[in-house]
Amino acid sequence: MALEIERKFLVDDGWSPPPDVEPEPLRQGYLTEADAEGTEVRLRVAGDRELMTVKRRRAATGAAVRDEIEFPLPDGVFEQLWPLTGDQWLTKLRYDVPIGDLMASVDVYTGRHEGLRVVEVEFDSEPAAAEFTPPAWFGPEITGDSRYSNRVLALT
Amino acid sequence: MALEIERKFLVDDGWSPPPDVEPEPLRQGYLTEADAEGTEVRLRVAGDRELMTVKRRRAATGAAVRDEIEFPLPDGVFEQLWPLTGDQWLTKLRYDVPIGDLMASVDVYTGRHEGLRVVEVEFDSEPAAAEFTPPAWFGPEITGDSRYSNRVLALT
Repeated sequence: MALEIERKFLVDDGWSPPPDVEPEPLRQGYLTEADAEGTEVRLRVAGDRELMTVKRRRAATGAAVRDEIEFPLPDGVFEQLWPLTGDQWLTKLRYDVPIGDLMASVDVYTGRHEGLRVVEVEFDSEPAAAEFTPPAWFGPEITGDSRYSNRVLALT
Repeated sequence: MALEIERKFLVDDGWSPPPDVEPEPLRQGYLTEADAEGTEVRLRVAGDRELMTVKRRRAATGAAVRDEIEFPLPDGVFEQLWPLTGDQWLTKLRYDVPIGDLMASVDVYTGRHEGLRVVEVEFDSEPAAAEFTPPAWFGPEITGDSRYSNRVLALT
């Protein structure tokens, strides 16, 4: 089981995607209710991959730390599961932008959250997360702010 | 997406498994909380098959009617997901016993629910479910009685 250790920020208004970075369109929906404490079961289409991701929050720290398991769904299963997300879904474009040895994942929301831009950085350890100095194009930190959780955004 | 239409009964004390029916050992756990209204995400080991089942209740009727999607997990995924069930799991032996054209699935619980025996019958339609006459070895009906839902039993 992988451990997801991440920090999350808004993106400065002045930022625009690097011209050499091709965004990946993501569509994701949730099978479970928006209960911040519980287990999250997510469906995601990323390019031509159909994935399920199960996440569960660990004890709260400065970074968001979650157990995360992601796996490809067998052929034909995604189409059956997707209707169960109801209207709990969202779409965005993801730009993977390197920052030194780290990768910033910039999510530019489309659809009803158009205009929202969020950047996430994943770390190998909590100390590495704590030591991270955001570059100038990062806006205010929103790690752990449930208003910006994708599960909540999918509902609102 | 399959529709699961079923009725559920306790099993009469006098019943014993037919000698020619080999039981299948089942171990199942839940990724989601025991919220009777929500979506249920279940992991099950049946023999050597590792399965995920997603169920969502439909409008209440005489029978329990749920959308149900079941699929095999890719190799190695079950072992990663199972720890997320915590202690929300149970074990039982399932006996498939034909009743005319129908199949009765008798669950003989093992572990901490030892002694509990429940029989479920699935139907093609709600009228077929309504017309069903239980044989003499069926005990009181417990369709929709949340005390006997596997998700609740897994918790208690």
